[in-house]
Amino acid sequence: MISIGIDIGGTAIKGVLTDSDRGELARTQRPTLAAESRDATITQLHACIEELSAQSPMQVLAGIGLGVPGAIDHAQGLVLHPPNLPDWDAVPLVDILARRWSVTVRLENDANCAALGERHYGAGKAHDHFVALTLGTGVGGGIIVNGRIYHGQRGFAGEFGHITLDPDGPVCNCGNRGCIEAYLGMQYLMREAIAVLRKDTGSVLHIPATEDADHLTPKDLSEAAMRGDQSCKNILHRAGLRLGIVIASVANLLDITTFIIGGGIAGAGAPLFRGIEESARTRVLKVHRDSLTILPAELGNDAGMLGAASLLR
Amino acid sequence: MISIGIDIGGTAIKGVLTDSDRGELARTQRPTLAAESRDATITQLHACIEELSAQSPMQVLAGIGLGVPGAIDHAQGLVLHPPNLPDWDAVPLVDILARRWSVTVRLENDANCAALGERHYGAGKAHDHFVALTLGTGVGGGIIVNGRIYHGQRGFAGEFGHITLDPDGPVCNCGNRGCIEAYLGMQYLMREAIAVLRKDTGSVLHIPATEDADHLTPKDLSEAAMRGDQSCKNILHRAGLRLGIVIASVANLLDITTFIIGGGIAGAGAPLFRGIEESARTRVLKVHRDSLTILPAELGNDAGMLGAASLLR
Repeated sequence: MISIGIDIGGTAIKGVLTDSDRGELARTQRPTLAAESRDATITQLHACIEELSAQSPMQVLAGIGLGVPGAIDHAQGLVLHPPNLPDWDAVPLVDILARRWSVTVRLENDANCAALGERHYGAGKAHDHFVALTLGTGVGGGIIVNGRIYHGQRGFAGEFGHITLDPDGPVCNCGNRGCIEAYLGMQYLMREAIAVLRKDTGSVLHIPATEDADHLTPKDLSEAAMRGDQSCKNILHRAGLRLGIVIASVANLLDITTFIIGGGIAGAGAPLFRGIEESARTRVLKVHRDSLTILPAELGNDAGMLGAASLLR
Repeated sequence: MISIGIDIGGTAIKGVLTDSDRGELARTQRPTLAAESRDATITQLHACIEELSAQSPMQVLAGIGLGVPGAIDHAQGLVLHPPNLPDWDAVPLVDILARRWSVTVRLENDANCAALGERHYGAGKAHDHFVALTLGTGVGGGIIVNGRIYHGQRGFAGEFGHITLDPDGPVCNCGNRGCIEAYLGMQYLMREAIAVLRKDTGSVLHIPATEDADHLTPKDLSEAAMRGDQSCKNILHRAGLRLGIVIASVANLLDITTFIIGGGIAGAGAPLFRGIEESARTRVLKVHRDSLTILPAELGNDAGMLGAASLLR
């Protein structure tokens, strides 16, 4: 089955042409032009599809899957004012594309697409039940039950980032206190990291944290940790311990014991994953202790578009 | 459709004969005799079924549904060493009853049965998606998705009580720290309550808490609160605030916004429910704020057997 998958991000639109048997056939990428206008973004979207569909006869194309960074009205095929696409309100994206391309169009939010990508092409291939987490600006989640996305009542399920870790914790973007995102979301993680690194004169990141903190990213922490920087290892280990607490809660609630962790700081590897293992495996109910499986995501930034392509299955 | 539902509790076996259209036709109850032996309990079970089936011709009976207080191996129809039935290991209860009664037998854990009971006969009749919570010795949960029990990977889903409220909180029976059950489970709630009541010489429960604390129950707190005792109202209000934090997390994760609260202290009414409302509605993501619905359970101790009867549907 041939399909196109598109991941509409705040900065880039990424597209892939896939065959469900053979995998990726072609890919493309264009700037989203989010700051210009909604129409500019949609023109870029059409150009991506044009380019990919040129590599495959239209009559064999099963359809187009779209991953979008925000909430969706599944019944009406609307994208609902995605925060990273400021000119978009409620956009009938399914209709717009179906009219132009005369194929089936499926819409899904980007965290769910990433989960589906890992399910069909990545770390989730052997797992019918898992939660995929993306540690980026926020903490995104997608829940896979019996191999399919769990949507919840209105399609908003998977907001793992807004599970409370500590009721008295720091204020989160959502307005609540102590959400796990208020510890692991990029800005929160970096704020805490910078305070630590400014005090640690021995860290390779001490000077950047003191003099150029605004440009420091989770990737810098990961790289310094991999080079052996103890403060950076500690920061990522603590992030892992915190994430593991919430993972244990979710495993207990859902009886799902596989967690696939991707996104920026997940690349940090050992210290983060060691932290997750330590707290999740200790805290989860005994019945789950042996089956708990924490895996790094395998597809990086490609998970979204590959998952979008698999929406046609 | 006529079916029998049985709720096997640690002290009593409760049974009901139901018609899916007309509701309850007959009920019975016998002591579980858990301390005697497994066979004694099974004999009691057969006696309940005998009594109920005598009220209905066997040929119209769709089957027997059983709610049991523990984990279940659904594939093999086993009850797995329920903690309140000490003489039971892995008991093939489906086989035992099917051989004796020659009808379909379905097995489910008691928290899920209670959820299903509320779904078909109680507060959940109008709700396809909800989480039912039972505040008793522990904090039990059953998740209803699209009108059916969500089981998870191995049938262990719904352990709402073992979601972490505070990672540094009191030690829970499960070995973890700060589970919501370690605040709201009966022994934990009463321990905290007794400490408060011993200090409050104005409380109607001051003397019992000081002189006869072992016999004080959540029901006493509820009754005192209903009569206006301020300390008891505060204790139940604080329990509600805590529960609401976890409810908000679960609503965010699952996109399920209806919660049905039953069990001992739920009868306390106003102060508990006000606490839940206050914290859950403030903390939940904005998208859920208006749809969040917190309902008292309607069936009390009958939820389990009625839910068990509806397993045959």
